Amino acid sequence: MINIQNLVRDVQLVREKSPLIHNITNYVVMNNTANALLAIGASPVMAHSIDEVVEMTGIASALVLNIGTLDAEWVDSMVLAGKTASLKNIPVVFDPVGAGATSYRTKVCKRIIEECKPSIIRGNASEILALCHANTQTKGVDSTASSDSALDSAKALALLTRSVVVISGPTDYITDGIQVNTVENGNSMMARVTGMGCTSTAVVGAFAAINKNVLEAATHGMAVMSIAGEIAAFRSPGTGSLQVNFLDELYRLNEETIQMTIKQPASDEIL
Amino acid sequence: MINIQNLVRDVQLVREKSPLIHNITNYVVMNNTANALLAIGASPVMAHSIDEVVEMTGIASALVLNIGTLDAEWVDSMVLAGKTASLKNIPVVFDPVGAGATSYRTKVCKRIIEECKPSIIRGNASEILALCHANTQTKGVDSTASSDSALDSAKALALLTRSVVVISGPTDYITDGIQVNTVENGNSMMARVTGMGCTSTAVVGAFAAINKNVLEAATHGMAVMSIAGEIAAFRSPGTGSLQVNFLDELYRLNEETIQMTIKQPASDEIL
Amino acid sequence: MINIQNLVRDVQLVREKSPLIHNITNYVVMNNTANALLAIGASPVMAHSIDEVVEMTGIASALVLNIGTLDAEWVDSMVLAGKTASLKNIPVVFDPVGAGATSYRTKVCKRIIEECKPSIIRGNASEILALCHANTQTKGVDSTASSDSALDSAKALALLTRSVVVISGPTDYITDGIQVNTVENGNSMMARVTGMGCTSTAVVGAFAAINKNVLEAATHGMAVMSIAGEIAAFRSPGTGSLQVNFLDELYRLNEETIQMTIKQPASDEIL
Repeated sequence: MINIQNLVRDVQLVREKSPLIHNITNYVVMNNTANALLAIGASPVMAHSIDEVVEMTGIASALVLNIGTLDAEWVDSMVLAGKTASLKNIPVVFDPVGAGATSYRTKVCKRIIEECKPSIIRGNASEILALCHANTQTKGVDSTASSDSALDSAKALALLTRSVVVISGPTDYITDGIQVNTVENGNSMMARVTGMGCTSTAVVGAFAAINKNVLEAATHGMAVMSIAGEIAAFRSPGTGSLQVNFLDELYRLNEETIQMTIKQPASDEIL
Repeated sequence: MINIQNLVRDVQLVREKSPLIHNITNYVVMNNTANALLAIGASPVMAHSIDEVVEMTGIASALVLNIGTLDAEWVDSMVLAGKTASLKNIPVVFDPVGAGATSYRTKVCKRIIEECKPSIIRGNASEILALCHANTQTKGVDSTASSDSALDSAKALALLTRSVVVISGPTDYITDGIQVNTVENGNSMMARVTGMGCTSTAVVGAFAAINKNVLEAATHGMAVMSIAGEIAAFRSPGTGSLQVNFLDELYRLNEETIQMTIKQPASDEIL
Repeated sequence: MINIQNLVRDVQLVREKSPLIHNITNYVVMNNTANALLAIGASPVMAHSIDEVVEMTGIASALVLNIGTLDAEWVDSMVLAGKTASLKNIPVVFDPVGAGATSYRTKVCKRIIEECKPSIIRGNASEILALCHANTQTKGVDSTASSDSALDSAKALALLTRSVVVISGPTDYITDGIQVNTVENGNSMMARVTGMGCTSTAVVGAFAAINKNVLEAATHGMAVMSIAGEIAAFRSPGTGSLQVNFLDELYRLNEETIQMTIKQPASDEIL
C-alpha cells in the first residue's frame, strides 16, 4: 500500500524546498531529466568535471549517477562525486544503464556500488539481474527479463549493498531486501520513450532529497512517474506526444489527480 | 518505384525483431534518434567508450556513425567500432555531418570511409559533394547545394566506396552507383527541425539491420522518414509540434498510412 | 522603449541572411538551442573539437559560448574559438551558467571574459552578481537573486568589460553600463523549462550576427524570446507543451504577433 497522504506531502515538500539535484548522467536523457525535475518542482544541475564535482555535490540535496553513455573520465567523476556524497550523507541514487550489455559496464557498476554506497539502485529487470549474476546478458539498454523474475535478485542485492533496489517494469518493485512495495500504475507505451527509466531515477532522487525514509522516498518517486505517465498516455496518440504530455502531467500533479489515478495493490505483504 | 509490399514487410520486420542499433552519434540529436528508433520499433543504444565499443557493436544488428559533434576520442571509438562491424558483416551506416565545413571533418570522413567500409553513406547534397571534391565549402551543417546537382557525385562515390549513397533533400536519391531510387515524400519544414537528417541515418540503420538488400533497406528507411514527416507537417503549426507529431506518426505508421501517402515517381529509371 | 520597426526588421534580416551561429554549449540544451535558432531562421552549428574550432568560428557570423556542462577540454576549445572570433570581429556571446555555484565555474568565467572579450554576457541575476562579487553563492544553475538587485552590478560589469550585459528574469535588463533597456514580456512558467536561458543567449547571438548595434541586438533577441514564450505559455497546460509551443511561436513570429503582444515599459530612462 502507498500511503496517499504521505505521497501528497512529499510532492508538496519537493515543490516547497526545490532541492538541488546533482546529476552526472548520460547525454541522451539530460534534457528530459532536467525538465522532469523542474516539472515536479526540484532544481536540477548537470555537472561532470572532475574540477568541480566535489563542490557541486557538496551543495546538493541528492546525487544521481547514471552510466548510460559512460567513459573513463566520466566514471572517475561519478566515483569522486559519489564518495563525496557518501561522506556527507547526501543520498546517492544509481542507475546501472545497460549493466550486463558489456563487461565494462558490469565492472563499472561494481566499482560505483562499492565506492559510492548508493542509497537507491534503480534499473530494469535485466540490469538488476546483471548486477547479481555477472553472466546475465542484457540486450543493449532495454530489458529482456521480467520484473517478477528479478525480484529475488533485487532483494539479495538490497541486503548485500544495504540499499533500496527498484526494478522498473509493468509493475515496479521497490525493496530494501525485507519489505517490498509495488507501483501498479503506468502504461506500456512509456517503454517506447527514451530515458523514461533514467527520468525515474532522477525523480526518485528528488524524493530522496526531502524524505529520509529511503524505501518510502523511492516508492513515491516511482509512483509519481507512473501516475503522470499513465494519465499522459491516455491522451497521447504516439510516443512524441507522450513525452510532452508526461511533463505537463508532472507539472500539474496534485492530490486530486493522485487520488483519482493511483492503483493500490490487492496486498502489499512482506514477501 | 518503391515496392509497397516490401516496404510494409520491412516495417513489420523492424517491429517484430526490434534490432539493436548501436549509435555513436552527436550530442544534439541523440535524444531524437533514440526516440525515432524506438518509435519505429527498433532498440537503440548509444555508447562511445573505447573500453566497450567492440563488445557493444558485436551484439548489435547495425552500427550508425555520425560525426556531428566529433572530437579525436570519439573518432577513435567510431573507427574501432566500424572496423569491428565491418569484420563481422554488421552493416555500418555513416553520416558525414558538416563534411566540407572544416578540413578536420573532411579528413575524418575519409578515414572513416576507408577504415570502416560503410554499407550506406547518407548526407545532404553539400556533404556528399564535399566527400567527392575536397574543395567544396559547406556552410556549417546545412546544405547549400541542390540534391540534383550532387547525384552524379553520389553515383561516383557509391562505385568508389562500394556503398549505397543517399542524398537527402526535397527529393531523396538513393544509389548504388548503377540504380537510383527516389523518395518524393516529405515537407520543407523538416529541414527546420534539428537532427532530421541524422534521424534518417539512424532509421536507415534499422532497416539495414533487417534487410540484406542494402539499396532497398536505405530506400525504405528514407521512405518511412519522409512519409511520417509529411503527415506530421500537415498538422503542425510550427517546428516544435512537427518534432512531436513526427514521432507519433513513426509510431503509428502502418500499411494504410503508407498506401495513402506514398508518392511514386513518374519513372525510376536507371540513370 | 523597443523600436518595433527595428525589431521587425531584424527578425526579417535573420530569416533572410540565415547567419551561421557557432555554438560551444552544454549537453542539456544543445537540441533546444539548435531548434530555436532554426525556428527563428538562423543556421546553428555545434562543434567543440580543438582540431576545428578555429576554422568553424572563422566561417560563422557569431559565436555562442556556454559553460553549462564545462570541463577542461571544452574550456580550452571555448577560449581558442573566442580568441579567434575576437580577432576577426565576430561577436562573442557568453553565458556564464552557474557562475558562483563552484569556484571552478567562477574562475573559468573570468578567463573567458578576459581572453575572449565577449560582446554580450547574458545570465540570471545570481550569475551576474557572481561575476562581480566572487563571494556570491549560486544555487546550482537557477537564480536565487532578483534581477532588480543585480542591475547595478550589471552596469558595472558592462563598463568594466566593455560588453552589453543582460540579466534575465521577470523583467529582462539589457545594459551597456550607461543605457538600460528592459523587456517586460514573458511568463513565469518559462523558468520551469530547462535551457530557456541558454536558448536566450543563442537567440541573442543570431541578432548580434545581423545587427552591429550590440545593445539593440541583445534587446531584440531577448524581446523575441519573451514574446514567443508569453504567447506559447498562454496555451500551454504545462512545461512539456510550453517547450513545443515556444518553438512553434518562434517559427511563426511576425510583425502582427509582435505588435499585439509587446509590452512597452512606462519609461525606459537612463538609470
